[in-house]
Amino acid sequence: MIPGPIEFDPAVLSAMGAPTTGHLAANFIEAFGQALERMRQVFMCSDGQPIVLAGTGTLAMDSAGVNLVEPGDKVLVINTGYFGDRYGALLERYGALVTHLRVPPGDRPGLDTVEDALRKGSYKLMTVTHVDTSTGVITDVKGLAALARRYAVLIVVDGVCSVAGEELRMSEWGVDLAFTASQKAVGVPPGLALLMVGPRALQAFQARRTPVSNYYADWANWLPVMQAYEGRKASYFATPAVNLVFALNVSLGQILQEGMETRIARHMRLSLACKAGVQALNLGQVPLKPEYAANTMTAPRFPPGINGADFVSRVGKAGVTLAGGLLPAIRSEYFRIGHMGAANLGDILATVGAIEIALEESGYALSPGTGVKAALASASAG
Amino acid sequence: MIPGPIEFDPAVLSAMGAPTTGHLAANFIEAFGQALERMRQVFMCSDGQPIVLAGTGTLAMDSAGVNLVEPGDKVLVINTGYFGDRYGALLERYGALVTHLRVPPGDRPGLDTVEDALRKGSYKLMTVTHVDTSTGVITDVKGLAALARRYAVLIVVDGVCSVAGEELRMSEWGVDLAFTASQKAVGVPPGLALLMVGPRALQAFQARRTPVSNYYADWANWLPVMQAYEGRKASYFATPAVNLVFALNVSLGQILQEGMETRIARHMRLSLACKAGVQALNLGQVPLKPEYAANTMTAPRFPPGINGADFVSRVGKAGVTLAGGLLPAIRSEYFRIGHMGAANLGDILATVGAIEIALEESGYALSPGTGVKAALASASAG
Amino acid sequence: MIPGPIEFDPAVLSAMGAPTTGHLAANFIEAFGQALERMRQVFMCSDGQPIVLAGTGTLAMDSAGVNLVEPGDKVLVINTGYFGDRYGALLERYGALVTHLRVPPGDRPGLDTVEDALRKGSYKLMTVTHVDTSTGVITDVKGLAALARRYAVLIVVDGVCSVAGEELRMSEWGVDLAFTASQKAVGVPPGLALLMVGPRALQAFQARRTPVSNYYADWANWLPVMQAYEGRKASYFATPAVNLVFALNVSLGQILQEGMETRIARHMRLSLACKAGVQALNLGQVPLKPEYAANTMTAPRFPPGINGADFVSRVGKAGVTLAGGLLPAIRSEYFRIGHMGAANLGDILATVGAIEIALEESGYALSPGTGVKAALASASAG
Amino acid sequence: MIPGPIEFDPAVLSAMGAPTTGHLAANFIEAFGQALERMRQVFMCSDGQPIVLAGTGTLAMDSAGVNLVEPGDKVLVINTGYFGDRYGALLERYGALVTHLRVPPGDRPGLDTVEDALRKGSYKLMTVTHVDTSTGVITDVKGLAALARRYAVLIVVDGVCSVAGEELRMSEWGVDLAFTASQKAVGVPPGLALLMVGPRALQAFQARRTPVSNYYADWANWLPVMQAYEGRKASYFATPAVNLVFALNVSLGQILQEGMETRIARHMRLSLACKAGVQALNLGQVPLKPEYAANTMTAPRFPPGINGADFVSRVGKAGVTLAGGLLPAIRSEYFRIGHMGAANLGDILATVGAIEIALEESGYALSPGTGVKAALASASAG
Repeated sequence: MIPGPIEFDPAVLSAMGAPTTGHLAANFIEAFGQALERMRQVFMCSDGQPIVLAGTGTLAMDSAGVNLVEPGDKVLVINTGYFGDRYGALLERYGALVTHLRVPPGDRPGLDTVEDALRKGSYKLMTVTHVDTSTGVITDVKGLAALARRYAVLIVVDGVCSVAGEELRMSEWGVDLAFTASQKAVGVPPGLALLMVGPRALQAFQARRTPVSNYYADWANWLPVMQAYEGRKASYFATPAVNLVFALNVSLGQILQEGMETRIARHMRLSLACKAGVQALNLGQVPLKPEYAANTMTAPRFPPGINGADFVSRVGKAGVTLAGGLLPAIRSEYFRIGHMGAANLGDILATVGAIEIALEESGYALSPGTGVKAALASASAG
Repeated sequence: MIPGPIEFDPAVLSAMGAPTTGHLAANFIEAFGQALERMRQVFMCSDGQPIVLAGTGTLAMDSAGVNLVEPGDKVLVINTGYFGDRYGALLERYGALVTHLRVPPGDRPGLDTVEDALRKGSYKLMTVTHVDTSTGVITDVKGLAALARRYAVLIVVDGVCSVAGEELRMSEWGVDLAFTASQKAVGVPPGLALLMVGPRALQAFQARRTPVSNYYADWANWLPVMQAYEGRKASYFATPAVNLVFALNVSLGQILQEGMETRIARHMRLSLACKAGVQALNLGQVPLKPEYAANTMTAPRFPPGINGADFVSRVGKAGVTLAGGLLPAIRSEYFRIGHMGAANLGDILATVGAIEIALEESGYALSPGTGVKAALASASAG
Repeated sequence: MIPGPIEFDPAVLSAMGAPTTGHLAANFIEAFGQALERMRQVFMCSDGQPIVLAGTGTLAMDSAGVNLVEPGDKVLVINTGYFGDRYGALLERYGALVTHLRVPPGDRPGLDTVEDALRKGSYKLMTVTHVDTSTGVITDVKGLAALARRYAVLIVVDGVCSVAGEELRMSEWGVDLAFTASQKAVGVPPGLALLMVGPRALQAFQARRTPVSNYYADWANWLPVMQAYEGRKASYFATPAVNLVFALNVSLGQILQEGMETRIARHMRLSLACKAGVQALNLGQVPLKPEYAANTMTAPRFPPGINGADFVSRVGKAGVTLAGGLLPAIRSEYFRIGHMGAANLGDILATVGAIEIALEESGYALSPGTGVKAALASASAG
Repeated sequence: MIPGPIEFDPAVLSAMGAPTTGHLAANFIEAFGQALERMRQVFMCSDGQPIVLAGTGTLAMDSAGVNLVEPGDKVLVINTGYFGDRYGALLERYGALVTHLRVPPGDRPGLDTVEDALRKGSYKLMTVTHVDTSTGVITDVKGLAALARRYAVLIVVDGVCSVAGEELRMSEWGVDLAFTASQKAVGVPPGLALLMVGPRALQAFQARRTPVSNYYADWANWLPVMQAYEGRKASYFATPAVNLVFALNVSLGQILQEGMETRIARHMRLSLACKAGVQALNLGQVPLKPEYAANTMTAPRFPPGINGADFVSRVGKAGVTLAGGLLPAIRSEYFRIGHMGAANLGDILATVGAIEIALEESGYALSPGTGVKAALASASAG
């Protein structure tokens, strides 16, 4: 129950461990082509161009940045934490002029503030972290995308903690690019960077006047390969991570088997149950308002007097692995629960139960079962 | 959460799927030898002779029976359900004169009744099902073994639902033979029959005046093989089920890593939590008294008006797989929860939570969370 | 390259290591049902009753024997080696009166000799080892079955080293029962006994006047289970070895994908290539005549002065695992090469090449490459 | 038998398919740390800094380039084929002034020619493809490194088809950086880029005056992570490809178990056997001289009149998968055999045998077995 890597489905692991075929093998071509098609459905982006790279979420972020900005371009970074800082640094490396719209931990910038910034600057690009894994804050991507459309700015969504878990309707909302990594809600071991490039972003790439200053990430190298495999032909720029691609296709198939709407609703229902349990135990949360809280994770604050490291280790002894705080400013004040991918109500009950046990062992007064009762009541009401 | 096959550990499944070595390969000889040694610790039988057969729990039962009885031998079957009937039929096939000590569903014969029977008959053998999977009743094997010793009768324990989960101290209590199948608390996919033959049982076998009327199960074929492998030499009677034996060794290693005392205590704690949850929901149980209830499973009764098949299917939709009733006489009146092997508190909470949801959907009035709260309270008190 | 367990296909191993479902799960019921149907095609027995038991080839042998003989029945054992002796002992255990038709190592009884015996005795049953793994001799099952039909004797074929590799047309030839184990040419790790019971054998079972003296192997317990699963319904006598059954279905699917005729022809072609290589190296073979030699294995004799244990170990260092001699009378005089299942020409060349290297290291004079050249020439002529 | 991806060892695949741990898990930290240490031994570079990236061989190439060159730096590319062209293009992307030293297909630049070029230019860096997979030509890295030392030029070796197969003594020879991809002789499914950075290369990186123009590949991000894991502490820049890293550690362990000297000698012996077989069939080879031919692959030329596509497909039907030509100028004139990683003599014989069969079917006159005989003779002489 940490915010990624999550536990992976046996069928996905089985694809990981299957004998590796060559990248010219018919079954690999079919699997890769199918995975690309399925990505469009999972990203809810019917007119997007999927890209799969051997690499990490950071490579996805890099690839989205370096292909879209040119030296001197102005970028607005909606900065809700750790990954906003990183995106700014990355874009500056490629010559972008970056403005950060920062907020205190747990907060998120209001749409009016963003609109104000967009009105004043002449930005080419806006980036936003959909779910900030360091705080559990979810941004209003739908509202931000509407602003991006109004001010003719490209909007790039860091969906590492959201794609395949949170509601993210790229085409409907007007998101220009979203990316994630395989090991989060997509449900595949780490090693793949996944991007969905919308038509405006693709156009901006094609209209570049300067070369892409990153050879490996240059879409000019990858687009022919993606188009070939989706057309069920092999092509080569760099050897694909064959086993990971097979595993990706299995996992995307499972995701679509559940259905995106059902999946989003499930993540919401589990999130509410988790948060109900946490609240019943009188624990606060990092996100300042309930509507700022993500559905793929929960970031409860410790009650006064609880030592974080001891606490996480006690929860571990009770059978559930949680993550500690991440945001430097408040690192020791909170912990993090991931509930994305294949998580179910049992996982939530187990987690809340383990938190109760650890709280009790830490000397925190509570009536045993209060949290799990509230979590279950929330779920059965849902 | 059914009473077997349970979910197996990834390391065990990995051993199942590993490339098969020959039965003469050094690493197989070592693994088989080690597994036999470990069986002694798991069966708590320091002076026993372990036997591993390719086959099922029924073959284990057959093997224990056919090697110990000769035509005309008198056998007392402590019959607490389905498998008592089967053992009687099996022993009669081999010429034994079988007396059943039967009880109503959920009950178990008192030690005085058993002693009375032993005093009157001149039995060679007594068989008992440690945990009857059809009712969730656990018998008093310790007390029965003491009687067996007093009356110089061999005692054979069907440990299919108990070995590696319930307290079963073969040497200390004086049990002459216990057997199980791989797929229960031992934690290995189905396909192996496991026996532990104590010294008196072995002596009885060696003192037979008639041949064993079952070629495949005849210990004379298997004892040299078991002794050879334990001495780290290969031997052949029939090709061992190589992958299953590797998996067995992995799983036994994990069991002993946890430690038998810890493991027994964990099963007890989880069982109490499950039963506390069930009781808080006002459900009865098949075992007539709390001390008759096994620690490896729980057999709750439906409240009046609940349709069993619908109920189990509703629990399934809530994410937990349970088993329906098994004992013909009361089949539609109860259901069964297995909590053996690697089960943890999260599994119990998830199960009780799913039961609550299914009860509520079935129109049963309850305050949501009552069961999980009681289960957690029981566990945190433990 | 030993006569079983062979190397198994990754897809088969993957089924072995997949998470275990219950025996009531829909996908297991389908896989088991399909495997039973496929067995009929592999055994070439359109009107047979397939039986799959958790156990070994010895259990298959036992099951075939105990269900067909009653005390006092006369049985003719066509005895070409180790397993003929075993079958005789097994049948005597169940009260049969056994006559062995023995031959020297490498020989097989002529049809006239068998007919002579059948004419004189009044046998209920004749057993024959199709391919004797201890000698590499293949018997003339087609001719024997014709005799069996003429003299109204049941014929049981031990097909452990032949089913799915050698030509064995049960229905067409009139074979009454054939059995094998999973780990030979069927291509599944050890742990399953496979039987195909023809209509006359089934009738003989149904006409028994005495009970089957082996509880676990009694077809009365198994037939309803097999019929239920083939009708795509679950049924229970003993928990099926779920993972092995899934693996069996995968392997049978692969076998039928290749096609039985193609498969038989491939085994023959590879066998000829192997034997051509062996002969070019001036090594003799255990089977006394070329037509006595099986297609699933080769049993070459050592040249004078070669120490068998050293030799097999040298071949091992050259990268190929072979088996030593098995038949006590001539154990040190020969070795055994298995080429069944998925073996291909590369395996044969590698094996012959390794034999050449080992021979050379043992001081045997040869022109390097003579064997592999002959093997390849045989294959390319085929 | 293609020049990568090769067939992977079951233990490596098993690590790929094992349940994924977090990158903070103790067993992952240990495995990653150990893998880094083992890389030094495999690259024979006792004072090097290993770097493992989620990505491909192309990322490794990119990472080596972008971290070492600054705009205006002069680079000499020893260009023996496809990957020399790529390296030039990549380096120009980052502002380098590239001079190609080109040769006709199958040739390689002489040391005097290289020295001449070095003397005239004032190069910062020289790049060379150790084994060009498009031609099977191996360059004289030892000699080139000596020149690099003499002229104080950094030498970067593209070891994609050589590391862990060919002799490459980084420290001893004075190579400044070598890289490869996981899926070649290192024996791990594709998805990892592996670099070994020698002390002079590291110094050049640290002495840069301009930022690295590639965020993801910037060593400043990776060096602290590599140093942390080797010191058995976790660190984070991007989520490591956990399963691939575990698999890498398993494979490196196997490689060192064999021993680098033994491994290099084995590759040489197999290569000679393969080339002897090819030569005995009167096929030419792409490398113009025997000493130009790599040990990890063989690139035979078709005899006149043979159609390449048909031929490769015929070899495939004979059970061996080969690769067609790659170098555009002569693509239809030759084919490629990979023999790296765990290949053994059996694989070579099988391959040569399949080539013979395909040649014969193509109407090429040969005495069957000539090739395999020569291959075996070569191996047994070795």
